[in-house]
Amino acid sequence: EFSSFLKQKMLHFGDRKVGVVGCPVHHGQAKPGTEHGPDALREGGLIKKLMGLGLDVHDYGDVGTPSHEDDHHFDLPVKNPKHVATASENIAADVYNVIKSGRTCLALGGDHSMAIGSIFGHSLAEPEHVVVWVDAHADINTPLTSSSGNMHGMPLSFLVKELQPYISKLPGFEFIKPCLSAKNIAYIGLRDVDPGERYIIEKLGIQSFSMSEVDRHGIKDVVEKAMHYLDPEGVKPIHLSFDIDALDPSLAPSTGTPVPGGLSIREGNYICEELAATGRLTCVDIAEVNPSLGNERDNLITVNSALSIITHCFGGRRQGTYPKNYQIPIPTHTNHVAPPPS
Amino acid sequence: EFSSFLKQKMLHFGDRKVGVVGCPVHHGQAKPGTEHGPDALREGGLIKKLMGLGLDVHDYGDVGTPSHEDDHHFDLPVKNPKHVATASENIAADVYNVIKSGRTCLALGGDHSMAIGSIFGHSLAEPEHVVVWVDAHADINTPLTSSSGNMHGMPLSFLVKELQPYISKLPGFEFIKPCLSAKNIAYIGLRDVDPGERYIIEKLGIQSFSMSEVDRHGIKDVVEKAMHYLDPEGVKPIHLSFDIDALDPSLAPSTGTPVPGGLSIREGNYICEELAATGRLTCVDIAEVNPSLGNERDNLITVNSALSIITHCFGGRRQGTYPKNYQIPIPTHTNHVAPPPS
Amino acid sequence: EFSSFLKQKMLHFGDRKVGVVGCPVHHGQAKPGTEHGPDALREGGLIKKLMGLGLDVHDYGDVGTPSHEDDHHFDLPVKNPKHVATASENIAADVYNVIKSGRTCLALGGDHSMAIGSIFGHSLAEPEHVVVWVDAHADINTPLTSSSGNMHGMPLSFLVKELQPYISKLPGFEFIKPCLSAKNIAYIGLRDVDPGERYIIEKLGIQSFSMSEVDRHGIKDVVEKAMHYLDPEGVKPIHLSFDIDALDPSLAPSTGTPVPGGLSIREGNYICEELAATGRLTCVDIAEVNPSLGNERDNLITVNSALSIITHCFGGRRQGTYPKNYQIPIPTHTNHVAPPPS
Ligand SMILES: [Mn+2]
Ligand SMILES: [Mn+2]
Ligand SMILES: [Mn+2]
Ligand SMILES: [Mn+2]
Ligand SMILES: [Mn+2]
Ligand SMILES: [Mn+2]
Repeated sequence: EFSSFLKQKMLHFGDRKVGVVGCPVHHGQAKPGTEHGPDALREGGLIKKLMGLGLDVHDYGDVGTPSHEDDHHFDLPVKNPKHVATASENIAADVYNVIKSGRTCLALGGDHSMAIGSIFGHSLAEPEHVVVWVDAHADINTPLTSSSGNMHGMPLSFLVKELQPYISKLPGFEFIKPCLSAKNIAYIGLRDVDPGERYIIEKLGIQSFSMSEVDRHGIKDVVEKAMHYLDPEGVKPIHLSFDIDALDPSLAPSTGTPVPGGLSIREGNYICEELAATGRLTCVDIAEVNPSLGNERDNLITVNSALSIITHCFGGRRQGTYPKNYQIPIPTHTNHVAPPPS
Repeated sequence: EFSSFLKQKMLHFGDRKVGVVGCPVHHGQAKPGTEHGPDALREGGLIKKLMGLGLDVHDYGDVGTPSHEDDHHFDLPVKNPKHVATASENIAADVYNVIKSGRTCLALGGDHSMAIGSIFGHSLAEPEHVVVWVDAHADINTPLTSSSGNMHGMPLSFLVKELQPYISKLPGFEFIKPCLSAKNIAYIGLRDVDPGERYIIEKLGIQSFSMSEVDRHGIKDVVEKAMHYLDPEGVKPIHLSFDIDALDPSLAPSTGTPVPGGLSIREGNYICEELAATGRLTCVDIAEVNPSLGNERDNLITVNSALSIITHCFGGRRQGTYPKNYQIPIPTHTNHVAPPPS
Repeated sequence: EFSSFLKQKMLHFGDRKVGVVGCPVHHGQAKPGTEHGPDALREGGLIKKLMGLGLDVHDYGDVGTPSHEDDHHFDLPVKNPKHVATASENIAADVYNVIKSGRTCLALGGDHSMAIGSIFGHSLAEPEHVVVWVDAHADINTPLTSSSGNMHGMPLSFLVKELQPYISKLPGFEFIKPCLSAKNIAYIGLRDVDPGERYIIEKLGIQSFSMSEVDRHGIKDVVEKAMHYLDPEGVKPIHLSFDIDALDPSLAPSTGTPVPGGLSIREGNYICEELAATGRLTCVDIAEVNPSLGNERDNLITVNSALSIITHCFGGRRQGTYPKNYQIPIPTHTNHVAPPPS
């Protein structure tokens, strides 16, 4: 018999509408360049590839990321909080609108502070959503546990309800309502976790599949366990926040904080195929593509890896796929050596 | 206890006779160079490596691949059909003769259109054979589903009985009798499958282990399931058609249609070790090594990967192996500081 | 519920004392440079990384490796036996002293002949120890089965009791008492095994998890089976002898005998995390880092891989770790826009 799991997961062309939101933020970390991530992905052929999957694609362009001249707060252990806050508010608004319009949202970073806005905006449209966070890093430092002050290492701390007693009040962040419980988050791919982050993960019981667990259980069981934990009934909208540094540095060299021993592109694509197959993937972030790091070849590799991740989130399958009502063409004549029409 | 599966699969040196057939074809695709594949493998040390495994090796040289001046057929959606047909007929004859002479056949491509001849020739000698097709591509386009007209993407369509109503009559192809049923084929490694191919795979129920399934089940279960499906009683001759682009492009850069996210050399070797251990591997194709693509280092990597695949098909084992009647040598004297003979 | 296996394996900072012993030997093989291995690891930041894990680290410096002018023995099929013997005796003494002082020993090679001394020294302090040998090679040739005469391919043959009838008497080796039974050894990572070695492994029933078995069973089961086999009650001290060539050449290019198809850094780190989590890892060898082979980038890659292996042997975990009594800091004021102190 033909494997049943393949059939039930079959996604035909054109089942989805997608809205693309560029999030060209870079003030969440110190290396210029992540603001060029959205355009690097577009120039790499993003829209064409999505349309090649038969999708109805609309690109909403980039959100505004206005700068703040007075964004140094000498008593605060974070860098550029107002800048990050304003961008987050704009991202949240666009993500909310895209999802409310009936499209799946693809949010293109930008550094990973972008996820403050995209997850918050997603929660306004879909309060029951769960988050799969694929990253080498846990990005759950509080302003006070962070040793760098870079906000791309903190986004989850602002969103998790249980952490709020530990979070400093930051200028501009008044608009954010913590919208996640610790049990709504599953990590995949961690391998560089700060002491405070590890403590938080353990104290709050956040489901964390580090590379150790991927090695131990294999990617199939990891994805299954993560999804079963987040939503045993399989009914909730899913937010995938994919930091490109989750992949091995050989696959994503153009990123700010690479860590050896990452996911293979196969594992990355597998995660995306499985989440896409649920039919409940409502918003996808792609973060930390930085075209200013590495040479041209590094850039090409990184962008292609990101595009592969994205297409497998939106119906691309290594088994192949075909349009609805496809039929094999039948030869209409057997006269095979006729001269060309002149 | 010492693991029993290791013992029962032990292959001693010298249990096999091998016949090498060069298939320097390149008209099945558009990039010159695959015609140099057989010699690149020979110059890389193929024969010596096979003999180093204790095998009785005979190299039958290359089959003829005569060109046809009038091989443009403007009403046919395929390129160079006469050229491919003639080469296929010659390959089929040589493969048939090698197998009939009691040797395992190693057919060195050449582009993957070579498999039309090698599988057909194999079927003439062993009508019950089954095919394991290891490839990034399904190579089962019909002339009418192919978007390129390149015949290296079509070989299986000419061989599968169930597909014949959909196959255009091509000049020179009269000699081929479809010799495979859909149930005689198992794919491993697919990750770039055209819509028509996917439809055919699903409609005919062809067993397909794409990279998704390799990621999901692991290579051990994939090989076990494939072999159990093809031949649950374990009695049939096996044809392995190994497209080097099944391997990850990092391992086989010198090939015409590389696709990221391929098999590791470990997985490739594992497949071969397992098929070899059945004792029923009767014919092996190695296709799509193209020394004209990539630089010298790319070539070396590609050829070495191909040689590794081949040696593991013919008795090479990562656990090691030793000649029959091997004994550990015993020191014959303990006088260890004597002067050298003068 | 939060995965229990994570909690029970939690290692807090500062639970261990470590003693580093440099073993700058190179006469066990023909390529100069392994004598610079210890310093390459130190200069790569070894001590600081170990201290960053909260460990009490003492570096005992390098053992002496005096040369012998009359170390050519024309009737013996081994090279430099006196040199290797003297270095081994010194290594054994230092390893013994470090372990007896209550520190875990980290022995930095040097070629893999270093393990003669480190395993023997370990056995003097802990006679019940078991050995996990992670290597592309079996390193169990006898002087008479070796085709090269290089002693880095023989260390285990001098230590295994059952092999002694086959071992030539060598000048300087009188001090060594065979201290291992075949059942005290488990191999992981083999993929280039000589015929005599394979015969010995099979004859003595040595537990061998070649890359085939890693591919077949996965690294989790391999480590579990190896440890269960060596010590079903989980009480014995463990010696890990890690040849850097066990890793894939892409991860350890600066080594003398690279073999394609090796362990990933993830698998290497997994092995180390699991052995460390037993709390019984008493001595670790890192062998065959050769900074004289390859270019600067190759060296950096190799050293970083070795450091990753080492840190995961001594408490580094991809899930993260935190100091005992860690607490999340709580904001002490909310006045977040005060001017800086002037
Ligand atoms: Mn990250
Ligand atoms: Mn991140
Ligand atoms: Mn192919
Ligand atoms: Mn092919
Ligand atoms: Mn080795
Ligand atoms: Mn070794």
